[in-house]
Amino acid sequence: MVGATGVVGELLLRILEQRQTRLGRLRPLASARSAGQIVRFHDADLQVVEATPDAFVDIDVVFFAATGSLSKSLAPAAVERGAVVIDKSSTWRMAEHVPLVVPEINADALERHQGLIACPNCSTIGMVMALAPLHRVFGLRRVTVTTMQAASGAGRNGIDELARQLADPHAPATVFPRRLAGDVLPQCDSFDATRDDGLTAEERKLVEETRKILGLPELEVEPTCVRVPVAVGHSASITIETTAPVDLAAARQALADFAGVRVVDDPAHANYPTAANVAGTDEVLVGRLRQTGTHRLSLWQVADNLRKGAATNAVQILEALGIER
Amino acid sequence: MVGATGVVGELLLRILEQRQTRLGRLRPLASARSAGQIVRFHDADLQVVEATPDAFVDIDVVFFAATGSLSKSLAPAAVERGAVVIDKSSTWRMAEHVPLVVPEINADALERHQGLIACPNCSTIGMVMALAPLHRVFGLRRVTVTTMQAASGAGRNGIDELARQLADPHAPATVFPRRLAGDVLPQCDSFDATRDDGLTAEERKLVEETRKILGLPELEVEPTCVRVPVAVGHSASITIETTAPVDLAAARQALADFAGVRVVDDPAHANYPTAANVAGTDEVLVGRLRQTGTHRLSLWQVADNLRKGAATNAVQILEALGIER
Repeated sequence: MVGATGVVGELLLRILEQRQTRLGRLRPLASARSAGQIVRFHDADLQVVEATPDAFVDIDVVFFAATGSLSKSLAPAAVERGAVVIDKSSTWRMAEHVPLVVPEINADALERHQGLIACPNCSTIGMVMALAPLHRVFGLRRVTVTTMQAASGAGRNGIDELARQLADPHAPATVFPRRLAGDVLPQCDSFDATRDDGLTAEERKLVEETRKILGLPELEVEPTCVRVPVAVGHSASITIETTAPVDLAAARQALADFAGVRVVDDPAHANYPTAANVAGTDEVLVGRLRQTGTHRLSLWQVADNLRKGAATNAVQILEALGIER
Repeated sequence: MVGATGVVGELLLRILEQRQTRLGRLRPLASARSAGQIVRFHDADLQVVEATPDAFVDIDVVFFAATGSLSKSLAPAAVERGAVVIDKSSTWRMAEHVPLVVPEINADALERHQGLIACPNCSTIGMVMALAPLHRVFGLRRVTVTTMQAASGAGRNGIDELARQLADPHAPATVFPRRLAGDVLPQCDSFDATRDDGLTAEERKLVEETRKILGLPELEVEPTCVRVPVAVGHSASITIETTAPVDLAAARQALADFAGVRVVDDPAHANYPTAANVAGTDEVLVGRLRQTGTHRLSLWQVADNLRKGAATNAVQILEALGIER
């Protein structure tokens, strides 16, 4: 596991324990900066070793839960040494030969892997889990979405910065582009001055990854990604346009029947899911279903960005590969 | 002024001072509970008197910045006694004989008033200020919007509850339906169990008031109103479908030329407006303009919900009436 000391890496360890994933042994790796630290796994203290190409010798599966640059430089080395790589970074997601997998949706794409498998972005995973069952019933034509993303989407530094700002009105912004406490920022990740689409990298991921996972290269996705002062749990306000007429009861049933999705939708009792409900769990929760036209449906979706949005999805990919010992 | 001790009422006093609105005298009124309190206006201490029908004798203009029930019971009494009522509550907004006015957009509707004039909801005002100039150039067909609304939309109690929760992780929710600190809630105002549209009252206001102000009774509006842990400043992520093809430069120009709107949109330098930028100001700020199709445009809009979203707009209505002394 590369990035074993990061917030997603640590959660990967906990989820591997919880799911009692059968592993021969686990080798925690990290950048030189974090080498030497100790991580706990199944009641053992394991020393973190610097991730170098030779660290992958005799390893079957490598989780990359680290920075994109570490993944870019080292994932091919791991594949060359015979390992299957499950990568959480954005580096390889859009490469044609790399399956981009949410197991409940497109586990079949794993059959075509060439050693490298990518785990989608946290906001993408939550949204496509809600879109996939609706697409199967009604066909998707367009998705208009506003995500409201937690500070932990920027890793431990993001969580810490929000906590500092909440405690101190003068704590500066270094991880996020502005102070996040007491505000909402229509920027996740960076703008690219060389493009004229006006999108952030996070928004571009949401467009491109959704198309790839759902196998809909022409799908129109209109995203606005907003950072909100929440520690864990990404929310999304989604409106879809469909090819077939929408039936609200059928939409509800399709979502309820989809593995990994739970419908929490009882407006008469003001019941709907929020980030606080979903933090620490693996389900994607959906509520506030509203038909807004013959071919239109609005909904609210929340997921734990660190679990189903990252670590849990990566472990599910391992399980779907069927190569645990 | 009815509701002179509330958060909007106090701000009305400050804005009347700042704009040097010519008033003969000002009589601060409130419910029996707040009567006897002192408010400060132009260096004078004024005692708040209980709002009763006879309190409106010899009064030219009454601001109602109080609860809907006070407005419902007392606004007609004020009109009967010859006053013009500018009402901030939702009570009269959709009544056919009541103009619903954002002066930059439909000041002409004031000519038809019969004593009662309504000020729109805070989230509506911000949004229609951005929509009106775009409608004039391209024609609006559909609006898909997610608002991210500040705690002060629920008045002083809302501000206080958020502050308590931020200081104390165990502070309960009484004003808002759940704990707001550390979460975002897809509920502003209440659900109506007698309707099957799944909308909150806030969302229904956004639909109906937008149609009335813009004079577009058939306009399709798909709203999701979200409460966020921000003290002041409502944000909105808006996507529109137009009748004429969109031209991004023309859209930018139309917004920049519209009185009361300012465009802050420079993605190359990560510049866009947020609630923190707009709190305490009267402008509606717009940024993150993106063309997403031949007839489609996304944008981000923020406004101070207490000022342009409430008090400033009410004072602008008074100014547009031209009946100050």
